[in-house]
Amino acid sequence: MYETEVIRLKEDIELKNPILIVGLPGVGHVGKLVAEHLIEELESEKIIEIYSPHFPPQVIVNDDNTIRLVNNEIHLCKLEDRDILILVGDHQSSSTDGHYELCGIYLDIAESMQVNQIYTLGGFPTGQLNYKDEVICAVNNSSMVDELKESGVVFKKGEPGGGIVGASGLILGLSHFRNIDAACLMGKTSGYIVDPKSSQSLLKILSALFNFEVDLGPLEERAKEMEKIVAKLMEKEQQKVMQEDDLTYIG
Amino acid sequence: MYETEVIRLKEDIELKNPILIVGLPGVGHVGKLVAEHLIEELESEKIIEIYSPHFPPQVIVNDDNTIRLVNNEIHLCKLEDRDILILVGDHQSSSTDGHYELCGIYLDIAESMQVNQIYTLGGFPTGQLNYKDEVICAVNNSSMVDELKESGVVFKKGEPGGGIVGASGLILGLSHFRNIDAACLMGKTSGYIVDPKSSQSLLKILSALFNFEVDLGPLEERAKEMEKIVAKLMEKEQQKVMQEDDLTYIG
Amino acid sequence: MYETEVIRLKEDIELKNPILIVGLPGVGHVGKLVAEHLIEELESEKIIEIYSPHFPPQVIVNDDNTIRLVNNEIHLCKLEDRDILILVGDHQSSSTDGHYELCGIYLDIAESMQVNQIYTLGGFPTGQLNYKDEVICAVNNSSMVDELKESGVVFKKGEPGGGIVGASGLILGLSHFRNIDAACLMGKTSGYIVDPKSSQSLLKILSALFNFEVDLGPLEERAKEMEKIVAKLMEKEQQKVMQEDDLTYIG
Amino acid sequence: MYETEVIRLKEDIELKNPILIVGLPGVGHVGKLVAEHLIEELESEKIIEIYSPHFPPQVIVNDDNTIRLVNNEIHLCKLEDRDILILVGDHQSSSTDGHYELCGIYLDIAESMQVNQIYTLGGFPTGQLNYKDEVICAVNNSSMVDELKESGVVFKKGEPGGGIVGASGLILGLSHFRNIDAACLMGKTSGYIVDPKSSQSLLKILSALFNFEVDLGPLEERAKEMEKIVAKLMEKEQQKVMQEDDLTYIG
Repeated sequence: MYETEVIRLKEDIELKNPILIVGLPGVGHVGKLVAEHLIEELESEKIIEIYSPHFPPQVIVNDDNTIRLVNNEIHLCKLEDRDILILVGDHQSSSTDGHYELCGIYLDIAESMQVNQIYTLGGFPTGQLNYKDEVICAVNNSSMVDELKESGVVFKKGEPGGGIVGASGLILGLSHFRNIDAACLMGKTSGYIVDPKSSQSLLKILSALFNFEVDLGPLEERAKEMEKIVAKLMEKEQQKVMQEDDLTYIG
Repeated sequence: MYETEVIRLKEDIELKNPILIVGLPGVGHVGKLVAEHLIEELESEKIIEIYSPHFPPQVIVNDDNTIRLVNNEIHLCKLEDRDILILVGDHQSSSTDGHYELCGIYLDIAESMQVNQIYTLGGFPTGQLNYKDEVICAVNNSSMVDELKESGVVFKKGEPGGGIVGASGLILGLSHFRNIDAACLMGKTSGYIVDPKSSQSLLKILSALFNFEVDLGPLEERAKEMEKIVAKLMEKEQQKVMQEDDLTYIG
Repeated sequence: MYETEVIRLKEDIELKNPILIVGLPGVGHVGKLVAEHLIEELESEKIIEIYSPHFPPQVIVNDDNTIRLVNNEIHLCKLEDRDILILVGDHQSSSTDGHYELCGIYLDIAESMQVNQIYTLGGFPTGQLNYKDEVICAVNNSSMVDELKESGVVFKKGEPGGGIVGASGLILGLSHFRNIDAACLMGKTSGYIVDPKSSQSLLKILSALFNFEVDLGPLEERAKEMEKIVAKLMEKEQQKVMQEDDLTYIG
Repeated sequence: MYETEVIRLKEDIELKNPILIVGLPGVGHVGKLVAEHLIEELESEKIIEIYSPHFPPQVIVNDDNTIRLVNNEIHLCKLEDRDILILVGDHQSSSTDGHYELCGIYLDIAESMQVNQIYTLGGFPTGQLNYKDEVICAVNNSSMVDELKESGVVFKKGEPGGGIVGASGLILGLSHFRNIDAACLMGKTSGYIVDPKSSQSLLKILSALFNFEVDLGPLEERAKEMEKIVAKLMEKEQQKVMQEDDLTYIG
């Protein structure tokens, strides 16, 4: 395996009005949590595995001590009125040019399956433990904006200011050259911890957009655990600020 | 897009005595500011887009939340007596060998368009907040020196001593093998901040060289804002020096 | 030598029921020590040398001031009932994609020699100077578990939690696609020092699995030296903890 | 220039009993200083330039503000009884695999010119400001040792212990596969500064080996300047040690 390899687990798949949702690891693992939750809660089937020398040389160890090589995978969820392809994975590319190659391969697959819309999911780091919970968005075709606004996405002029780095952004940029509409949905998150709460916000947008229902229970539980951790972090930060205040008296 | 891709937006361009000006991001963003200012102030048209896996996997978000993939671009300004090609961009190559590939491609384009002179623009970091405002220069053909001196460029023996790193230098070096005269104009700058004032100095040289006029107003405004920031930095530094003086009494 | 090169020192090798043991440098050099000990103690012969631009540009200096280029090597030990191939080396790949290329080459060799089982050896870092001495394991085929348990390997649910990084893990993952059973045996070790004691534990497992005997004496001696170093480290750590306790009284 | 390029400035060169001396930048710039000194002091001519995307994207600025792209070069010195090829350069490869490619190219050139011995020059870092001034050595063929000892080289068992990293070592290692005898001569040096004194020691060895004379004057001058710097460094270090002694009374 010296080259990226795409293993199709199922031949002759016929899809109905398919879209692609991309949830790879990134800020707060927000997108990955959403994608994994969808795969678990909706009826789904793994149809493609992608292995690549652009991923770290690493295996994941399962509960029964068997292993699997790190990869990206595409799962298929068949909803009533459309099919949803979900791209998840253990890692993004380790190298800059690997990002371009892998995202190119993902779009080759999407094109071959007549995908006409792509939604990449991610977290937007606010850098603060306290922030307004919302989902922001960038698109590669302005015609997508109205529908996204209706489903609850917040559009602010020029946000995110620093652009979008990684697969989530690159897929948007490369989709443009293939005439595939694509949007990047970003749940606000502190950027310091895994954030299932932000994932919930993203899931609500997707449910509204594609008219499906999923149980948010498991994410809610994880979100509560994380809230406790955040509360402790904030407490510590507060103490630190107070100590620094003390120091300014001395210095 | 696994390879660098050159997209020509216009076919059959006929150029009059063309030169190429290169203003890519670098020290103080001095060159980039100049190139962008020229594109805005002179009548210009984008004729080429270059995308590459050597650029970071990133999209820029526009004010209306649409995106575009990071790239380098060539714009055409038609002056009375000559045509000016201007190379601008979001990034330089992320990798060493990518620099060689991209600069080679830029020179392929320049050659195909019969460019006979190249001016790469950059900032020269003095490492100090206080320095004499001047534009220094290195050339790949000593026959260029006299004209440059007349237009206000300062030549000092062996400057810049550390050589020139990045696209600005590499284009000069590679142009030599293609028999294209090339000069690198460097506006002195602290190296700590974006420096529109240094860009103004560069613009004045270019105006003199190529006999055009541009409104420096917008750059002047940005320069004034930056001056305030520099003033604050210098104040802080001054205080720091004083505190360190204090400390030496104690230690 | 611009490409990885495999130099076969012996043609037409016929092997009896061969397995491959991999002991490349890694955590605590546990695997490397085991492999080198086996080569020294069992009757063995070097049959393959692998050189690669993915290894650092470095030569090793022998006692007589002659040098040899860093490499990986395969040695052959002929036991009564089976042949053991042992892969050892100075370095693992310096780059991510080099790992995939090299491990692919190792498996090409293994396949061409009809190897039907692979054992990669490594250390599992506990991050502590004091821990229970045991060998844990991950496999690419659950049918291997029972025999490994009988030989003394400890299986714990989902261990090691962080997966396995480097050649030891990658060979396991890639073997799966070639239908070769493979296990990664990891001796627990602090992760701070070269650990011949952990290597002894691994050797005992291998002796039980493959029914051979080796003199553990040389490793025992090195283990004793290391124990003295660990004892000193623990003493220092203890003192540090006490000093920190002191500090909390002051702060 | 997307690939490494070898530019031969002179065709049909006939050489008499040629050897290759390699003095690329490295520890204390010891080897580079020697090679440059030989080129300057002996009658010599540049015959080959090597440019490569494995070198940094950088130009060197000459005193007259013209530039040249960073490269490696081979110069030819015609002595009475033999010809000496000298490889010098601004940089070694920026990447691991680039080292292998470039050293392979150097050996292609050496082979094509019937070079039968290679001497790579470098500094051996002692890590101390005070050390015995000597030249140590590693060889790829033990038959070279006696002659080297006679010329003043010191051989110590297994030195240098950490092996030899970079072009100096790699050329030795790769020469072995081409049946070219090669030795790496290393002048001891602190490792902290450019060291013309260590270069003098190397030059004396080379003069003895190849029976030529060069004026050491220019190197001696630079060595004296450096000695003053070292003296200051040692003074500072002394003071630091004393201060630390003070501190231990307090802590």
